Amino acid sequence: MNSNIVADFSRGVDGLLPAIAQDEANGEVLMMAWMNEEALQATLDEGYAVYYSRSRKSLWRKGDTSGHRQKVSQVRVDCDQDCILLKVNQIGAACHEGYRTCFFRKVDDDKQTLTIVEERLVDPNDVYGK
Amino acid sequence: MNSNIVADFSRGVDGLLPAIAQDEANGEVLMMAWMNEEALQATLDEGYAVYYSRSRKSLWRKGDTSGHRQKVSQVRVDCDQDCILLKVNQIGAACHEGYRTCFFRKVDDDKQTLTIVEERLVDPNDVYGK
Repeated sequence: MNSNIVADFSRGVDGLLPAIAQDEANGEVLMMAWMNEEALQATLDEGYAVYYSRSRKSLWRKGDTSGHRQKVSQVRVDCDQDCILLKVNQIGAACHEGYRTCFFRKVDDDKQTLTIVEERLVDPNDVYGK
Repeated sequence: MNSNIVADFSRGVDGLLPAIAQDEANGEVLMMAWMNEEALQATLDEGYAVYYSRSRKSLWRKGDTSGHRQKVSQVRVDCDQDCILLKVNQIGAACHEGYRTCFFRKVDDDKQTLTIVEERLVDPNDVYGK
């Protein structure tokens, strides 16, 4: 595999680095997930975002269930090569709760409560089954 | 502290969650760093980004050395409340290498090499000393 040349997985925890998906069209930060070396290589090879699911302990081809895949147009790495940024064309909703982005809530001025600041695009029950 | 209500630090590794700083003006993803509960609380209280430095094992008030602080206009959390997104007004360069963003390199089509795709804003030697 070549991906360890572009990212330094030895700097990750359990070999995992954070990967940020950004909508290339409007710059929205869609989500953050984890990648191991195999996930990055698969992303580069397949042209669609592939993450590593910490709960399932396996590669996670984003959109396999929902159809909400992320076509990757560019992969960037940060100065320390321990964080990955994907510029993507997001199909549908990035978030499993049906929002366009996972960051659909903001912290209120009281610093204690959250307010939803995005519209829900789809009903998760329609996407993932009831 | 109140910040554990808005983010779930029990989901982090060693109590640390990834925090993404995004330029509120143009949507650029500037950097990713880590926050513990104290760092998030300080960010909310002070209005400027405060991270946790894993190497120094202490709070890191971004810009203390460089002057390149990040004024925070909004804090968002993701669906699982285990990733934080800061919308910031970045003063100067976010990256310690003198670039506006830490993601100044893209992975080339050969999947093995990196190309710099941003202009350097400042000479790091001028900011951090030689």
